[in-house]
Amino acid sequence: MKLYQIQASANCYRVRLMLSLLGIRAEWIEVDHKGGELESTAFRTLNPFGEVPVLVDGDIRLRDSQAILVYLARRHGAAHWLPLEAADLARIQQWLSFAANEIQNGPRMARGIVLFGRAGDLATALSNARRALALLDTRVVDREWLETEAPTVADIACYPYVSRAADAEIDLSDYPSLGRWLKRIERLEGFIPLEAGGPAH
Amino acid sequence: MKLYQIQASANCYRVRLMLSLLGIRAEWIEVDHKGGELESTAFRTLNPFGEVPVLVDGDIRLRDSQAILVYLARRHGAAHWLPLEAADLARIQQWLSFAANEIQNGPRMARGIVLFGRAGDLATALSNARRALALLDTRVVDREWLETEAPTVADIACYPYVSRAADAEIDLSDYPSLGRWLKRIERLEGFIPLEAGGPAH
Repeated sequence: MKLYQIQASANCYRVRLMLSLLGIRAEWIEVDHKGGELESTAFRTLNPFGEVPVLVDGDIRLRDSQAILVYLARRHGAAHWLPLEAADLARIQQWLSFAANEIQNGPRMARGIVLFGRAGDLATALSNARRALALLDTRVVDREWLETEAPTVADIACYPYVSRAADAEIDLSDYPSLGRWLKRIERLEGFIPLEAGGPAH
Repeated sequence: MKLYQIQASANCYRVRLMLSLLGIRAEWIEVDHKGGELESTAFRTLNPFGEVPVLVDGDIRLRDSQAILVYLARRHGAAHWLPLEAADLARIQQWLSFAANEIQNGPRMARGIVLFGRAGDLATALSNARRALALLDTRVVDREWLETEAPTVADIACYPYVSRAADAEIDLSDYPSLGRWLKRIERLEGFIPLEAGGPAH
């Protein structure tokens, strides 16, 4: 299995974390984005969107970190990571959409502007981030995981940018329940931090 | 089954369309968003995000239109709408994420600014929209549906805002393959347009 990725990207870390939690060995291939590799014809053949992460497993090629989590959990993970019962699957989808929308437009955008100097409206990104963090904090006031009684891809999808909110100078101590949920994820067997060098196994 | 919704919202239409395609009768409850109902305590109990659509089916309560499509397809739809094999499920997730991110930040944002006078940067929204439409157009150059050999929730998730691109003064004739894909969806049994009054069955 090959993961085309950028080490500092928390979208790519989302996949590295899932691989590590599932004990899957994959080759990490660092993409030279500063050298323009994302725009190259070879990379566009791999992913027409010109984005990382991309996972290649035999003849299966997937873009989008949420989609890759779904694939890894469904093909290689214990059933608790992605239960298939209709209401459970839909409830988990709520958080995959949240990771693709509210988290991308909030914590991710704020981190990109503050840490990497990307273009964007920081006030809007911070306002979106605080709304997203407050919604998550309320969600886990009285539960261990976002959905069901066990960790699912929903938790792993939401963890990376939320855990890095300090990169955008957001103080996570304002969100105490969220802080406890982050620590629960960090205690899972196979957990790796964003900075971990690769392959973990 | 009850759908809390706003008729003009294409996010809500996404759910109405799926209900109609599956032949499911549901009560449509129009939310008085101009009267502040989304901010009311009663509505926040239903959905802490303060957003429509919300689907209530017995004791199951779901927000997020993509999640509701997953629920309806998995519980009430033929298997082709949401195949559960790992690679198929992940490939479909790619487009659910696309609907939650690229479509929301592109065609949806542009439509909101132009049609409803919402705040936002129209140039960025239009640029995002054109990128999203071009990626979709390329995707369906040589295929009937976004994934698999049959329509799936991926197609239904992407259809609403794309089909309404003209509301943001985007000319869909620039995207001929996409135009043919839209027409294929419009020929499905049970298809209803955004304007259709409710319950369809």
